Amino acid sequence: MTIYDISEKAGVSIATVSRVLNGSSNVSEKTKKKVLDVINQYEYTPNAFARGLGLNTMKTIGIMCADSSDLYLAKAIYYIEQKLRTNGYDSILCCTGYDLENKKKSMNLLITKKVDGIILVGSNFIYEKESDNKYIADAATQVPLMLLNAAMDAPNVYSVVSDDYTSMYDATMDMIGKGIKDILYFYNSTSYSGKKKLAGYRAAMEEKGLLKSGNLLQFYQGSHEDIPSMTKHLKKLHAKGVRFNGLIAADDTLALASVKYAKEMNLRIPEDLSIIGYNNSLLVNCCDPELTSIDNKLETLCQHLITGLMGVLSGNEMPKRTIFSGELVKRGTTL
Amino acid sequence: MTIYDISEKAGVSIATVSRVLNGSSNVSEKTKKKVLDVINQYEYTPNAFARGLGLNTMKTIGIMCADSSDLYLAKAIYYIEQKLRTNGYDSILCCTGYDLENKKKSMNLLITKKVDGIILVGSNFIYEKESDNKYIADAATQVPLMLLNAAMDAPNVYSVVSDDYTSMYDATMDMIGKGIKDILYFYNSTSYSGKKKLAGYRAAMEEKGLLKSGNLLQFYQGSHEDIPSMTKHLKKLHAKGVRFNGLIAADDTLALASVKYAKEMNLRIPEDLSIIGYNNSLLVNCCDPELTSIDNKLETLCQHLITGLMGVLSGNEMPKRTIFSGELVKRGTTL
Repeated sequence: MTIYDISEKAGVSIATVSRVLNGSSNVSEKTKKKVLDVINQYEYTPNAFARGLGLNTMKTIGIMCADSSDLYLAKAIYYIEQKLRTNGYDSILCCTGYDLENKKKSMNLLITKKVDGIILVGSNFIYEKESDNKYIADAATQVPLMLLNAAMDAPNVYSVVSDDYTSMYDATMDMIGKGIKDILYFYNSTSYSGKKKLAGYRAAMEEKGLLKSGNLLQFYQGSHEDIPSMTKHLKKLHAKGVRFNGLIAADDTLALASVKYAKEMNLRIPEDLSIIGYNNSLLVNCCDPELTSIDNKLETLCQHLITGLMGVLSGNEMPKRTIFSGELVKRGTTL
Repeated sequence: MTIYDISEKAGVSIATVSRVLNGSSNVSEKTKKKVLDVINQYEYTPNAFARGLGLNTMKTIGIMCADSSDLYLAKAIYYIEQKLRTNGYDSILCCTGYDLENKKKSMNLLITKKVDGIILVGSNFIYEKESDNKYIADAATQVPLMLLNAAMDAPNVYSVVSDDYTSMYDATMDMIGKGIKDILYFYNSTSYSGKKKLAGYRAAMEEKGLLKSGNLLQFYQGSHEDIPSMTKHLKKLHAKGVRFNGLIAADDTLALASVKYAKEMNLRIPEDLSIIGYNNSLLVNCCDPELTSIDNKLETLCQHLITGLMGVLSGNEMPKRTIFSGELVKRGTTL
């Protein structure tokens, strides 16, 4: 709700609303009541009023993420909050879960709390169905919306993304270049970013005529941190006779589970099985040999996003979409 | 700021404040101005007014944590937010960092946002110096304050803690009982919880007359997720001639680094070196053999904390301090 809405609903001018709130005596009793009624009804606050006039801001940014216990999202939040604080901004974070209704609720909550901008962390906020994304476009009529690793075309919505497609394409090509042909793709998300990764793998494999079996695409449905159950998924596949000498995982947790699978099957890494993970997270040092993984430059992305947001809040132009390249960091799990 | 403060500062009765906000005409022009001036000056909002009268709440809980990228804190936040949502509450989270001034700022921010209660996650919010904890007692005059894994005596402050002292004492005794005598303690925090853990280890070692060298207490100062640097810390110790056949770590990351150390030194686990971690986190499945670790029943703690908070908000009694026992979950890194 903006100052314009207040004046519209009360049927008075913006100047009159201002006079009432400033306690000016130059307003009739009846007009004053009208304005105060609207304010009470909509829980409009004087400070938000000031912000509507550009006089004052709360210097607070809202952050939304689906799940703060996800390693990648947790790290992104960490960088974003750090950089906001450096810029003199406070932040409030809403962990929404994966359900659309809760996302809408959190978005409304942040708007009610009069934040200066909202950052959506991760690609779980964008849906296939165009109409499901209306809540983002709606919020963007009130405050600038920044998307990290997701993209959407709407006024006042800005995207900073890692080029997951190219990163995955390059990693797959790199593995193929080492003479590895049966490369399994192990993934657990079909989000915006998840789809880009899968498409990158697919493109490389199809270009080389190697995507011969549907078994090479393995979707894992369980909990995102249940490593034993991920390992079990691969062992079941092995029992069914599916064989592969390369594995590319859509995140490091899946890759770590794959390293455990190889050990339990007495496969040598990387001679019998080469493994690449994604995110270059804390987990790359957790296995033996250490994990080759794609670094999607999360800190750079976050830095750019905050710099962009600060610019938008100062009235500067910011590109609607900014794309960064990832980088394959080679360690012991690949040739 | 409460409704009482408004009436006091304006020098009018609470009923008068109420009448002004409800747009009643039964108030003099001069009185109305006084009240509106105070409201404008302190950015007091009508909805907070309603809450002060118990008429309405924002149904929002503030959560503060030092660092959302810490595995343990991230998990706690995840459980807390989930359980709040089940109870129909929204939450806003502030990641404060470890600096006291930022913690105070975040606390004020949450109070300004009119939350119904505040949860402090982790033991980094309590300081040695009594006066440094005044910000918590002050906030508790406005809303109930819940501490997870920290304790403090002040009105309207409630603690739910895991018995870290006993968990660590029991784990150390268990290791000693297996005939292991040179047990190194590897830690990286001197928070409330960090001190309890250390004291538990100390008590067991001293009781058995085994704490013979200061070298057995190893404090790691680097980044909380830089596993290679933790491993290096132990290797330097080895180079200095320090030897041990047991290691108890204050968290799983340190324990994982210790497993890597053992491998690099060609020590057999658990025959040459037994290792126990703390938190029973995602990381226990990340090493080979899998990590023995202390489960501090985080989900139970969080459940109890939310149940207690809901009770306090409904005007029920809640114990000032509730203590849960941890449990040693044995896996491959111990005899």
